[in-house]
Amino acid sequence: MKKLFFPVLGATFILSAIAHYANWNTTFQFVIAAICVIFVAGFLGQATESVAHYAGQRLGGFLNATFGNAAELIIAIFLVKEGLFDMVKASITGSIIGNLLLVLGASALAGGIKFKEQRFNVHLAGQNATLMLLAVVALFIPAVFVKSEHLSDHDTMTLSVTIAGVLIVAYVGWLIYSMITHKSMLEDHAETSSGHGEEPKWSKKLSILFLVVATVMVAFVSEWLVGSVEVVSEKFGFSELFVGAFIVAIIGNAAEHSAAIMLAMKNKIGAAVEIAVGSSLQIALFVAPVLIFVSLLFDHHMNILFSTIEIAAIAAAVLITSSVSRDGQTTWYEGKLLLLVYIVLGVAFFFV
Amino acid sequence: MKKLFFPVLGATFILSAIAHYANWNTTFQFVIAAICVIFVAGFLGQATESVAHYAGQRLGGFLNATFGNAAELIIAIFLVKEGLFDMVKASITGSIIGNLLLVLGASALAGGIKFKEQRFNVHLAGQNATLMLLAVVALFIPAVFVKSEHLSDHDTMTLSVTIAGVLIVAYVGWLIYSMITHKSMLEDHAETSSGHGEEPKWSKKLSILFLVVATVMVAFVSEWLVGSVEVVSEKFGFSELFVGAFIVAIIGNAAEHSAAIMLAMKNKIGAAVEIAVGSSLQIALFVAPVLIFVSLLFDHHMNILFSTIEIAAIAAAVLITSSVSRDGQTTWYEGKLLLLVYIVLGVAFFFV
Amino acid sequence: MKKLFFPVLGATFILSAIAHYANWNTTFQFVIAAICVIFVAGFLGQATESVAHYAGQRLGGFLNATFGNAAELIIAIFLVKEGLFDMVKASITGSIIGNLLLVLGASALAGGIKFKEQRFNVHLAGQNATLMLLAVVALFIPAVFVKSEHLSDHDTMTLSVTIAGVLIVAYVGWLIYSMITHKSMLEDHAETSSGHGEEPKWSKKLSILFLVVATVMVAFVSEWLVGSVEVVSEKFGFSELFVGAFIVAIIGNAAEHSAAIMLAMKNKIGAAVEIAVGSSLQIALFVAPVLIFVSLLFDHHMNILFSTIEIAAIAAAVLITSSVSRDGQTTWYEGKLLLLVYIVLGVAFFFV
Repeated sequence: MKKLFFPVLGATFILSAIAHYANWNTTFQFVIAAICVIFVAGFLGQATESVAHYAGQRLGGFLNATFGNAAELIIAIFLVKEGLFDMVKASITGSIIGNLLLVLGASALAGGIKFKEQRFNVHLAGQNATLMLLAVVALFIPAVFVKSEHLSDHDTMTLSVTIAGVLIVAYVGWLIYSMITHKSMLEDHAETSSGHGEEPKWSKKLSILFLVVATVMVAFVSEWLVGSVEVVSEKFGFSELFVGAFIVAIIGNAAEHSAAIMLAMKNKIGAAVEIAVGSSLQIALFVAPVLIFVSLLFDHHMNILFSTIEIAAIAAAVLITSSVSRDGQTTWYEGKLLLLVYIVLGVAFFFV
Repeated sequence: MKKLFFPVLGATFILSAIAHYANWNTTFQFVIAAICVIFVAGFLGQATESVAHYAGQRLGGFLNATFGNAAELIIAIFLVKEGLFDMVKASITGSIIGNLLLVLGASALAGGIKFKEQRFNVHLAGQNATLMLLAVVALFIPAVFVKSEHLSDHDTMTLSVTIAGVLIVAYVGWLIYSMITHKSMLEDHAETSSGHGEEPKWSKKLSILFLVVATVMVAFVSEWLVGSVEVVSEKFGFSELFVGAFIVAIIGNAAEHSAAIMLAMKNKIGAAVEIAVGSSLQIALFVAPVLIFVSLLFDHHMNILFSTIEIAAIAAAVLITSSVSRDGQTTWYEGKLLLLVYIVLGVAFFFV
Repeated sequence: MKKLFFPVLGATFILSAIAHYANWNTTFQFVIAAICVIFVAGFLGQATESVAHYAGQRLGGFLNATFGNAAELIIAIFLVKEGLFDMVKASITGSIIGNLLLVLGASALAGGIKFKEQRFNVHLAGQNATLMLLAVVALFIPAVFVKSEHLSDHDTMTLSVTIAGVLIVAYVGWLIYSMITHKSMLEDHAETSSGHGEEPKWSKKLSILFLVVATVMVAFVSEWLVGSVEVVSEKFGFSELFVGAFIVAIIGNAAEHSAAIMLAMKNKIGAAVEIAVGSSLQIALFVAPVLIFVSLLFDHHMNILFSTIEIAAIAAAVLITSSVSRDGQTTWYEGKLLLLVYIVLGVAFFFV
């Protein structure tokens, strides 16, 4: 399987390029770009991890934390550039609920079928819950204030930028806290030895080269994907919301999905939680606010106002995940519950 | 007292029948039917437990879990048949908040006055909290989506049926989880020996006969009750909501109420929690979705849209109960708090 | 520093009086009254503690619990008398979120910089969370019911008075529970010996005299403050909401703020939590309902309906504080998070 990775990556990328520039059937463009994104996102993830390994623990952790969702960030920047703010917000929503419900749910279910109970660091679970709650509050407060008090567009944008700044400050604080000042308290002692820390398969120079190449590839293929997504969603009668929240989000997170499930099945639920919840936090506290700042470079500025149903979906996902994970253990049934909530949200978004 | 049970049961039943068919004063019809429901619901509960005992532990647990709220289910089916959907939803709301706040509150207060602290299984408390949260999410999501996005009636009904299906799948999973795969983790070790497991007082054949008789009696008297409830609520100026949420719900749950309080006063708070919270879960995850499917058999279909105030009441009850019970212990003051929240909700519903 | 306390107190009081009666510049009136309030509130707090010490443990605890927020109560009564209900509610909101986010956040941050982890009684944390949730429910339920169901003014007022009564019953129960029946369970064992229990610096007679004097001073200076607050807020273009929720609330709680931070820096986070959360509870469960009853003495009656954004702010503060404190320990990062949420709310209120 692994031997075929680069050939398949290359083939889908070239095919995707041809489909785009030769203006083939849009549905085909979309499908091939989507498949390609899954591969290049996986490639980018591996390159990031490899560079992070050579950079040493702290800088490496920082690199992972910052570029771990680079693929999604790049896709979203292209969506912002096109002014597709609704789809950006939908894909942020979809990434958060997808990671919390689908990835964590599938991991807990798959792991729970093999192991009766799987445990992870209970302090980390509590901190994660608090941080996710911060994200919910940060999305909920402006929505409530703007809706009830009819703020002007200018005030809404100032409030959005302030909150985006606060979220980034919270995220930087979290990196310092979890990687420096309270590292040991939040670590999964049972898993420290093995952890993520496998030897990288590429040399330092090759890793950096691959990181650059992968980033460029992601940037291109993201543009092709975004170019076709609108036409496709119209053709099939899907709403922007459904496409952003479920299709784009699942495609953008496919690499993490499979990694987390594999780890859970090796009884490393702590590492799976770190990927799933960590990725959600990165989206909510880093990717989302960065996109607001990025939008200031373009003509149209994106505010932080999510729709009622997006906030409801995120709040539901956060509450149920917190309730499931707060005790620092997971079972098959808890995984199943998370998946059921994901289905409920998926069906609800589909009908909008 | 116990000797008088069957004579009183029989007398109220016959009186109720005469009052109904001879078309006596409607208020009297309602009062006597209400008293009769309390007795036959108690009878049905005892017959179910007795049959469950002979059926063996697993099948018995399943029977209890399925027919434990049979009286309420049957009353609700008659309400559905009459198209009184608002009253059905109100009585579902009332059962959930009544069990969580009134039954659990009175049990914790009564038990807490005798015993300084009463403890129960902390894993069970956590799982209960998660499941109740699932129920809140399942009611909250469609309400938000339908309200913000103006879904068509057809889509609303499809969404309702999907969510009803998800809830039943969650409930079946919960039975498998709590009775088979993770039974020991969720048991109250201190109470296992004595538990519910008293010797049944009737033979196997008699138990089955009684179960059939009790079910038929409940069915009849429910119809008589429902027949008079509308006239009575109009006469006294009560809203359908208040009657469903407080009067019907208290009548339908009277048997559980007294059982739970008795258990708490014997320091078996775990069993009391099981009755109160278990009954709420059964209503939310089994009775409510079954009623949606049942309504498909009639002309008018019932959707899963609860009103804002019903969802607010259920959410308030679930959050406060979770916060009180999450540590696996109760005190008199926690019981009092639950009762105070019940009073707040009762007064608020009364004024609607 | 301490030697200068009485001279400064006296000077600001006299200056404040002159500014008021000579009708000096309103902004100056406001600023000097605000500074004076900080000093007299501190004086009142010390006098209350001193009297409480002589009154013996139980009665003393009761005195502290009842008159601990006397300054705020008195300011609020003058606001109620003037019919400035919006500002009253804003200042209640501001006191609750200020204590939970600003005071607790600053305490946890200041303490957490010196000490890696600070622990406090985990039972108390759980109970506090439940009680704060009760307050949220008590504010949320009437708002939802009145808004969705268009209750009449008369019904709204009856509902308000009922809920106010319930809150006071809950508060009295809490005093009995935490000071009599379950005192030892909720105490901070590590801190009992040192605790608050320093020797009072004044004799019994002097303490009582000071309590009377301080109360009278607070009453006067509150009236002067309230007299100028409206003009000033108009002049600077601040909304009543912002002035009430941030300026009045910060001024009224300044004494507690500094005390809590000092205690946290001495590793007495338990005492700091008691001040911050205890003060919030007192405002929500005692001051707020008392103000509703007080308003019945005046022409215009104040109901319990808080605005959507006030309830959202209180709910956000309560949820995030519960999540942070539920494990009975705090770190610098948790303090920082609370402060960040306070900033988000502050900016949001500023734009209204």
